[in-house]
Amino acid sequence: MNKQLILSKRPEGLPKADTWTLEEHPIPKIKDGEILIKQLYISLDPAMRGWMRDVKSYIPPVQIGEVMRAGSVGKVIQSKNPNIPEGTYLSGTGGVQQYVVSGGKGWYPVDPKLAPLPTYIGALGMPGMTAYFGLLEVAKLKEGENVMVSGAAGAVGSVVGQIAKLKGCKVVGIAGGPEKCRYLIEELGFDGAIDYKNEPIRDRMKAEMPDGIDVYFDNVGGEILNTALTRIRRHARIVICGAISQYNNTEPTKGPSNYMSLLVNRARMEGMVVFDYAKDYGKAAMQMGQWMAEDKLKSKEDVYEGIENFHETFLRLFSGEKMGKLVLKVDED
Amino acid sequence: MNKQLILSKRPEGLPKADTWTLEEHPIPKIKDGEILIKQLYISLDPAMRGWMRDVKSYIPPVQIGEVMRAGSVGKVIQSKNPNIPEGTYLSGTGGVQQYVVSGGKGWYPVDPKLAPLPTYIGALGMPGMTAYFGLLEVAKLKEGENVMVSGAAGAVGSVVGQIAKLKGCKVVGIAGGPEKCRYLIEELGFDGAIDYKNEPIRDRMKAEMPDGIDVYFDNVGGEILNTALTRIRRHARIVICGAISQYNNTEPTKGPSNYMSLLVNRARMEGMVVFDYAKDYGKAAMQMGQWMAEDKLKSKEDVYEGIENFHETFLRLFSGEKMGKLVLKVDED
Repeated sequence: MNKQLILSKRPEGLPKADTWTLEEHPIPKIKDGEILIKQLYISLDPAMRGWMRDVKSYIPPVQIGEVMRAGSVGKVIQSKNPNIPEGTYLSGTGGVQQYVVSGGKGWYPVDPKLAPLPTYIGALGMPGMTAYFGLLEVAKLKEGENVMVSGAAGAVGSVVGQIAKLKGCKVVGIAGGPEKCRYLIEELGFDGAIDYKNEPIRDRMKAEMPDGIDVYFDNVGGEILNTALTRIRRHARIVICGAISQYNNTEPTKGPSNYMSLLVNRARMEGMVVFDYAKDYGKAAMQMGQWMAEDKLKSKEDVYEGIENFHETFLRLFSGEKMGKLVLKVDED
Repeated sequence: MNKQLILSKRPEGLPKADTWTLEEHPIPKIKDGEILIKQLYISLDPAMRGWMRDVKSYIPPVQIGEVMRAGSVGKVIQSKNPNIPEGTYLSGTGGVQQYVVSGGKGWYPVDPKLAPLPTYIGALGMPGMTAYFGLLEVAKLKEGENVMVSGAAGAVGSVVGQIAKLKGCKVVGIAGGPEKCRYLIEELGFDGAIDYKNEPIRDRMKAEMPDGIDVYFDNVGGEILNTALTRIRRHARIVICGAISQYNNTEPTKGPSNYMSLLVNRARMEGMVVFDYAKDYGKAAMQMGQWMAEDKLKSKEDVYEGIENFHETFLRLFSGEKMGKLVLKVDED
């Protein structure tokens, strides 16, 4: 049987247990040209909260009754497609379910001998690509700049900071709690870390980067973004990658009231969607893989188990109770 | 005697009569290398409201007791500077006063035979330069794009719209009242106009540009900017030039809560300060002058008289009771 997590109700605010229903259906039969993928790891990402909203966005919303969309890594266990032999490991958007039938489109081979499978939905997957293209293509990062990143201990933020360090920048991360802050500095080599749950953000931003911020990579939005706006330097670039603090809002979002700092500082705020860079994923993954092999880039995944535990695990994205990339293991290899 | 308008008090909200004091002082004597300028036209600009605030910005604030800063056009009536003969007309930042002594730095010769003097603080002055560089350098306008501009009947907005038309774009302006809207379409050749005082903005934006906005040139901020954010197209550029709706706020500014549209649309919001383009003013003015000579670009100034009337005239910037560039004539040529 194939356990599938179905979106059963659009949540207001934080998703609740009844947002989804876990259903069991027979594993589908494959036809000529198709493959059957047994999913191993499911990617849990803040963007998924956006996909649940019934609004026009960069991707159509998940419909009620559909399997919840999610990135994943799996293994081909049956194949009627001569190009994809059984035993191939693939990464794609398999959704929150145990088995997927596909013609192969949108699935990319990954090699568990080069990196652990969860890394392909972490630093070598969408979060890593987001960090890479956000910094290098959107922000057009230059050596020696001051980089600040919010959600710094998360899947994207942790890679942002590490790439910025590799590019010769000063890096300060914003994260929740002393443990994460210690991790940023001691394990990932950040120059500084701000604990937004326990420290006065504006003062700490000033103390960590007295001469201001050149690149602010934003994953959280809200008051932290608004405060960062008061600390940008001339010609700063703010990359709008996400706004996790706002995703479960039931009240209207508060906009960044300090946006006129963009004028004063001739700065820009620019949004990005990683899918736009798909044609260059390969190149980026090669560079990132190289850095990982040289131990210059670390990927950290926080792996939980069991598709039954999807809901509780998903909520860790918003409570912050996780370290690095949040992954749900749904089956043994 | 030299009548000078002194900033006597920092206003909260809209400036009041006691924000300034009109003082009379002897006309200063000039020394070797200096010139005495009799000011003829004073430029009244929304940016002046910002210069009165005691905060760090792109230019130091005007201090209490100082002559209020303002752009101006005047005539050299005494000269001990061999490079600037008597009778020369100059444009510079002479402040709200009748006479200025200067070494000449920051003053540029203007020719009343080529254009009326007030035009040199209008389309051929800072507002025109702002429009020119904002569209062409910041927004990197492309032929055929959809351009929307707020404060469209103002000094900057009216030039933005006309340049965009000259560049083969579709142009819609936002202005207050039917008279201004008629003016935009009938006199300046805009494709459409939205009367924000009397029309539902979102619906009208949609009706005028059903396929969305490529370049939004913002002079007003507030709810109109926030609504425009819901109407941008992919890769849109929002030029942050001003936020006149917010300058007299006594409550905290409301930020653009729809800023996540920047992400969805891979768009950017970028601030600008015209002074950054000073080295290219000459080139731009030549192009603009050419367009004016060919009757392809109109400069409209709304000229009021008398330095005594500065306060009432200045308030027209915020009430909108003016058409085009607001100018105060302070003396006869």
